[in-house]
Amino acid sequence: MWSLQRATKRLARPQGRCFATDKALPRSTIKEARQHEDGTPVALGGWVKSVRKHKSVNFINFNDGSCLAEMQVTLPVVESDQGDASQNASIADIADVTVGSSIFVEGVLREVPGGKQKRLELHPEKLQVLGKCDTQVYPLQKKYHSLEFLRENLHLRARTNTFGAVTRVRNALSQGIHTYFQENDFYQLHSPILTSNDCEGAGEMFRVTRTDGKDDFFGGPAYLTVSGQLHGEMYACALSKVYTFGPTFRAENSNTTRHLAEFWMIEPEMAFAGLEECMSTAQGAVQRSVQELLSRCPEDVEFFNKNYDKELSERLLRVTSGDFAHVTYTEAIEVLKKASVAFEKQPEWGMDLQTEHERYLAEQYVKGPVFVTDYPADIKAFYMRRNDNEDVGRETVAGMDLLVPKIGELVGGSVREERFDVLEKRMRLQGLLPEETGEEGAEAASAGDLGWYLDLRRFGSVPHAGWGLGFERLVLFATGMENIRDVIPVPRFPGHCKH
Amino acid sequence: MWSLQRATKRLARPQGRCFATDKALPRSTIKEARQHEDGTPVALGGWVKSVRKHKSVNFINFNDGSCLAEMQVTLPVVESDQGDASQNASIADIADVTVGSSIFVEGVLREVPGGKQKRLELHPEKLQVLGKCDTQVYPLQKKYHSLEFLRENLHLRARTNTFGAVTRVRNALSQGIHTYFQENDFYQLHSPILTSNDCEGAGEMFRVTRTDGKDDFFGGPAYLTVSGQLHGEMYACALSKVYTFGPTFRAENSNTTRHLAEFWMIEPEMAFAGLEECMSTAQGAVQRSVQELLSRCPEDVEFFNKNYDKELSERLLRVTSGDFAHVTYTEAIEVLKKASVAFEKQPEWGMDLQTEHERYLAEQYVKGPVFVTDYPADIKAFYMRRNDNEDVGRETVAGMDLLVPKIGELVGGSVREERFDVLEKRMRLQGLLPEETGEEGAEAASAGDLGWYLDLRRFGSVPHAGWGLGFERLVLFATGMENIRDVIPVPRFPGHCKH
Repeated sequence: MWSLQRATKRLARPQGRCFATDKALPRSTIKEARQHEDGTPVALGGWVKSVRKHKSVNFINFNDGSCLAEMQVTLPVVESDQGDASQNASIADIADVTVGSSIFVEGVLREVPGGKQKRLELHPEKLQVLGKCDTQVYPLQKKYHSLEFLRENLHLRARTNTFGAVTRVRNALSQGIHTYFQENDFYQLHSPILTSNDCEGAGEMFRVTRTDGKDDFFGGPAYLTVSGQLHGEMYACALSKVYTFGPTFRAENSNTTRHLAEFWMIEPEMAFAGLEECMSTAQGAVQRSVQELLSRCPEDVEFFNKNYDKELSERLLRVTSGDFAHVTYTEAIEVLKKASVAFEKQPEWGMDLQTEHERYLAEQYVKGPVFVTDYPADIKAFYMRRNDNEDVGRETVAGMDLLVPKIGELVGGSVREERFDVLEKRMRLQGLLPEETGEEGAEAASAGDLGWYLDLRRFGSVPHAGWGLGFERLVLFATGMENIRDVIPVPRFPGHCKH
Repeated sequence: MWSLQRATKRLARPQGRCFATDKALPRSTIKEARQHEDGTPVALGGWVKSVRKHKSVNFINFNDGSCLAEMQVTLPVVESDQGDASQNASIADIADVTVGSSIFVEGVLREVPGGKQKRLELHPEKLQVLGKCDTQVYPLQKKYHSLEFLRENLHLRARTNTFGAVTRVRNALSQGIHTYFQENDFYQLHSPILTSNDCEGAGEMFRVTRTDGKDDFFGGPAYLTVSGQLHGEMYACALSKVYTFGPTFRAENSNTTRHLAEFWMIEPEMAFAGLEECMSTAQGAVQRSVQELLSRCPEDVEFFNKNYDKELSERLLRVTSGDFAHVTYTEAIEVLKKASVAFEKQPEWGMDLQTEHERYLAEQYVKGPVFVTDYPADIKAFYMRRNDNEDVGRETVAGMDLLVPKIGELVGGSVREERFDVLEKRMRLQGLLPEETGEEGAEAASAGDLGWYLDLRRFGSVPHAGWGLGFERLVLFATGMENIRDVIPVPRFPGHCKH
């Protein structure tokens, strides 16, 4: 049909449209530049972090976000005819080089003598100020700002060391998650954000309408998803192994350090799988993700270890080696009852574990990540598979939570109820299907909003299992940060959707 | 604090919770099994695609979604005492093995003699039917179903060859996108889905409220994002190179084969970059993504080439080699005016290009992907950078669209207006900032909802550029499918949000 051979017909590239001033020297990043040898010419852009003026030399430190490290420009002061300490025409007026201003520097990298580690500084041949920054009004003047203050200046906080590092850590953890699933032949599924089901009971939902408030766009009410799981099952029951990595939403009025109205979830779903696969893949994904972080961002991890959590590096190293522990819910309750700790809520069989219990199990009892399995059926969702041969009154489901130190629950998952009759009965009990009409079978997907979900068991049902990981909790775990609002680029929580 | 050394305290793993019946033989996938040698024992699960019964042998073909290919079970018929053609106790009743039923087979792979390519079949030692499928009611009985019919049976369509292939293609393209950006030191940014800005004017927005319709959750109206660009700029002006890959939304009542209410976008944003970098990264990302597809999914591409678009393979191969062409908007209008084609809308300087024009340029004139640059300022968004030295009445912006055969516009991008004064003026003209109060400067982010966006230019502004790629359009391009509703797992469009 068409052919790239006819490239002769191509028009010349537009000229002079490239930002870099010297075409022979394309812009590099500080991350790249630090790998170079003494004497390498580079062009670097970034934002000034500090300026130190001395009699005969000025030092300008700047950062471009490619890594934590700053690059130092060493600028000898040249006495001019006017008597000012100024530079040649290629060098900007040092008065314009203020904290927060953006500069573009072309020059040569020089190794700084002495010191244990190789350190390069930049000897400029040309230094431009691209964008000035008025020190009288720039909010990030000071060396240190509280996280609360930075949360109010969301649009600038990425320029700080902490939030630059959080962004790089998120990227590395996220890529580690993809790597794990891709290496294990899972296909990524972009499950829908808009949904007509509130099935999981995972929390309050947001409603979606036209701007005038009408909900006739989809011919009925639509909501923002609280979980991609049900659609994960839809595709696992055809592709065998899939995973989602997308935003999910909760409209709960939770002003805590653990909850966001919008957060990212990772939800794999596997056909022909049981609780064992559920646990081994959760362990594998967490370990692979942390490994990716450790190998890509050692300086950022060191930064968080130094400034936010002195035990971080050790915790991350250890989580990547060895298998996670396992304990059943029933055993866990026994352990908690015997614990010499005054819990706010007394442990008792049948209750949902509280964060205090979860952290005790992970931090005190196991002293590491631990799976708790086989929870009471009554406190878990309708889709979790009932265990066989249970004591009456002590029915459990084949579910698991992964608890980790500092966080508590990081992952929650289960085997899904694959038996049509059992699932249909539970769904009717919970009002998720319309009243029984007496007619059997053939209604299929017409049987209410979740008829399609039941259909997956009607036609070639398979044992399957899956789990969900709240990505921001993993970032908390991997940075030692305390507030979930600080580990997502632009947090959404009650009263906050301005930026 | 805690230590994995205390592993002795770990409880034994729960037993018998793994799905695979024979622990010595974990479940494999058909994709893996096809790489094995003659004589390898395997355990495979999947859904039956066809059953052919003969006098002395039955053939069962099944698929597990790991790849396009089916695995054939060759099952000799053994005469039993009852006179029925039945099997030993380990083999399920063949009457239960129907199209759509799920089976789990343990056996040995055997090479089928003859044929050009190696082909393995499975000789079963054990064959279970995990989930029956009533052929009287199963919607996917027939060999062929129309895409329209499958759209009404969304929850089952992934079991067809076409939609299994679409899922694998999406996964490969998506990973190719990540690979490109990661290899080029971009950090992935999870930009927010909920926003209070309708700035881009890219289209109608959805509104988000509590389920009772109140919009007090965020203290003001909230919407679903139409683009992550502005937040991409927020982070590029700190991290230098970032990209988003997330869902975006349009509430337009478009019942076309090109529009969805919910779709996925890829939006890189680069500091210290101009139009040249914009084009080279767009080319690089598209090429890398298609390369990943070709190397991961050759059989799926062949499938689409055979069944949907006979020129697909050639088009994909060619797009990965060589540079894309370039033409300015002004030149493109001249080309269109001279074209011996009766356009529905006559080309004229100042108009937005229609799909008919875009496809003519890509398919007829360049016969390949082509960037059109420097569009009239009046038809483009406020944030695009005005070109310098323009003829009066012919002001243009440093923007570009990438046009490709079959699709038209695949990518749209631009240099962003980095000059505070120019941007502020344009934003005021378009009502994006409150009336001028006379006070200057210090209002900063308080100056209305988009004050933060202006702040990026107030404090250390940098030249920057970026673009957006509608992921589903790339999937259309890479599959030859015609309807965008068929290249996303669960499409959302007017009247459709049920599944």
